[in-house]
Amino acid sequence: MADDKAYAEGMDIRRRMWGPEGAEKRVESASGFNRPFEDLITEYCFGRVWSRPLLDPRTRSMLTIAILAVLAKPNQLKTHVRGAIANGVSPDEIREVLMHVGIYGGVPAGADSFMHAREVLQELGLDK
Amino acid sequence: MADDKAYAEGMDIRRRMWGPEGAEKRVESASGFNRPFEDLITEYCFGRVWSRPLLDPRTRSMLTIAILAVLAKPNQLKTHVRGAIANGVSPDEIREVLMHVGIYGGVPAGADSFMHAREVLQELGLDK
Amino acid sequence: MADDKAYAEGMDIRRRMWGPEGAEKRVESASGFNRPFEDLITEYCFGRVWSRPLLDPRTRSMLTIAILAVLAKPNQLKTHVRGAIANGVSPDEIREVLMHVGIYGGVPAGADSFMHAREVLQELGLDK
Amino acid sequence: MADDKAYAEGMDIRRRMWGPEGAEKRVESASGFNRPFEDLITEYCFGRVWSRPLLDPRTRSMLTIAILAVLAKPNQLKTHVRGAIANGVSPDEIREVLMHVGIYGGVPAGADSFMHAREVLQELGLDK
Amino acid sequence: MADDKAYAEGMDIRRRMWGPEGAEKRVESASGFNRPFEDLITEYCFGRVWSRPLLDPRTRSMLTIAILAVLAKPNQLKTHVRGAIANGVSPDEIREVLMHVGIYGGVPAGADSFMHAREVLQELGLDK
Amino acid sequence: MADDKAYAEGMDIRRRMWGPEGAEKRVESASGFNRPFEDLITEYCFGRVWSRPLLDPRTRSMLTIAILAVLAKPNQLKTHVRGAIANGVSPDEIREVLMHVGIYGGVPAGADSFMHAREVLQELGLDK
Repeated sequence: MADDKAYAEGMDIRRRMWGPEGAEKRVESASGFNRPFEDLITEYCFGRVWSRPLLDPRTRSMLTIAILAVLAKPNQLKTHVRGAIANGVSPDEIREVLMHVGIYGGVPAGADSFMHAREVLQELGLDK
Repeated sequence: MADDKAYAEGMDIRRRMWGPEGAEKRVESASGFNRPFEDLITEYCFGRVWSRPLLDPRTRSMLTIAILAVLAKPNQLKTHVRGAIANGVSPDEIREVLMHVGIYGGVPAGADSFMHAREVLQELGLDK
Repeated sequence: MADDKAYAEGMDIRRRMWGPEGAEKRVESASGFNRPFEDLITEYCFGRVWSRPLLDPRTRSMLTIAILAVLAKPNQLKTHVRGAIANGVSPDEIREVLMHVGIYGGVPAGADSFMHAREVLQELGLDK
Repeated sequence: MADDKAYAEGMDIRRRMWGPEGAEKRVESASGFNRPFEDLITEYCFGRVWSRPLLDPRTRSMLTIAILAVLAKPNQLKTHVRGAIANGVSPDEIREVLMHVGIYGGVPAGADSFMHAREVLQELGLDK
Repeated sequence: MADDKAYAEGMDIRRRMWGPEGAEKRVESASGFNRPFEDLITEYCFGRVWSRPLLDPRTRSMLTIAILAVLAKPNQLKTHVRGAIANGVSPDEIREVLMHVGIYGGVPAGADSFMHAREVLQELGLDK
Repeated sequence: MADDKAYAEGMDIRRRMWGPEGAEKRVESASGFNRPFEDLITEYCFGRVWSRPLLDPRTRSMLTIAILAVLAKPNQLKTHVRGAIANGVSPDEIREVLMHVGIYGGVPAGADSFMHAREVLQELGLDK
């Protein structure tokens, strides 16, 4: 009962940010338990919201990092730091987003998020 | 100064959900530091609230999973996925609770909770 | 680019819970600013998740109340207390959900939510 | 099935902080809907935790204000600013608690909480 | 003991976003109770973080709206919707930020934030 | 552009609570990515707020533990349990703070925080 066009567009956006590992392969590794949720994310989160043209992927990546930092979701924060780099956000811009979070979301949200983001940047050879 | 009847009833409910490991043995492993809190949980959370008959344990398990998923408490979410299975909630019902969470609590809360719940279902041989 | 079937089903569910005021009329009162979000809610939240048959509307209403109480969303909590009554949840069951919230989400979340829910029950002549 | 001693002690603590309006009269104004929760708060929150002697009421009031500010519970924050004054916390100390919140819980939590606390201090003639 | 340069720069940024009412006049209306916090915000939040050049005010406004929407701070969300407009963010862009919030922070965070933002846009004659 | 006096005072407070590992050495291990945030914390959080004399370090440590427990920041909670012991807070007092959290922030926040705090007390030989 899915919206096929939105699903395909969502899958494209996932692939552009994380390669096949964050797109087809991730869906294939789902079980009957979590597959319906994976499909919903692909179609709605990526296919229907990320795809809206009025904000570019760079801005959406920065917003996503800010939201995940405030919500304390380290796994997804790390995933989206990688995605942000793929979308053209620089490490310096990520730092600025997290400093903004440190003020508005509190020092602990900032400190944890800097630690998690830095781990990803180190893996990517981008922590200078 | 405890309410002995509520304490005993709370311990029964803990034992039914997690066996002696989640009841007597857990209390015995407490130190002077955390014992008063363990006792308070047994008496109030289990003995005085879970024990109230108007909602059955299946419904209380689903509510608990939803709340823990929204509050981002992965350790306790995993404990209560086990407890929910013991209370007769099916993996399909747990999926529905978490899809509801994914909408109301946000995609990141849903995604993390699916990951944690699936780990428990895999350990129980129930991830299909 | 919407999924028309899901949209129609979502609108049906909204109408059953709140009448035309919470369905067509609410959509009509939207502006260009918030209309895309209203449509997304109708299709995605109601048409694609609430509509899933494995959990009945009574259980989904109780889960929604628990989540909104924990998230501190008084406006929507009040709306969903009305919706829960329409879905056949009794005031006594709503009390049990909120007592569960008071333990797991903390006394302040419980206290605020009891206050807001009671206001709705008073308007409906159901606070006894 | 209550613990009568804890209930009485809890009611004493409520009365000391807010007079009869925050104790007997509040209980009397409850309906069948929220009375069980009111009783649980009196016994459990006040009778079993606030009553523990190792932290004095001044310290518990400051902790409560910090927690309510972080949890964004303005109604109860205002109630507990009054209670804190009754427990001997000075307006200057309340300011320090909220500045601490502003750093750790974020500037918005601090700003909202200062606004709400100041309203109470103005009503009490203590905003200088 | 303040950093005078940062304080002056912070006051400039406040004035550019909200005029004298959100800058000097707001400071003048503070009492001894909240003045130290107002000064800290001006210097630290605006003078030391908002002032950093690597992200432009438009991007910082969008990030701030996203964070406040997720943190459920309606008063400050409304203030920053005004500030965002002053910084050149369009109503359409604000809608996109809030749709992103609705997915990542949950439908209730999105719905409340649309309601609050729309009120401000109506006051400004920008709700179309 | 920092406030040198506040920075030095903040560094002193960090050193008193955690030794050089939580002060100079921590700053030295920062990269260009997170150094500006580390400096901001030293200067504002420690140099400008912790340093304010009206609340003593014991009280600020207890408030910090309560806030971090409610915000679900286990890494920093553990760091601040160590800092609290250095500031003269006893394990019994930490228990009381966390029991207060368990009531106001919910049983899951209390349970997780007891687990994390107990780990630190065990490392320090203080879990009895």
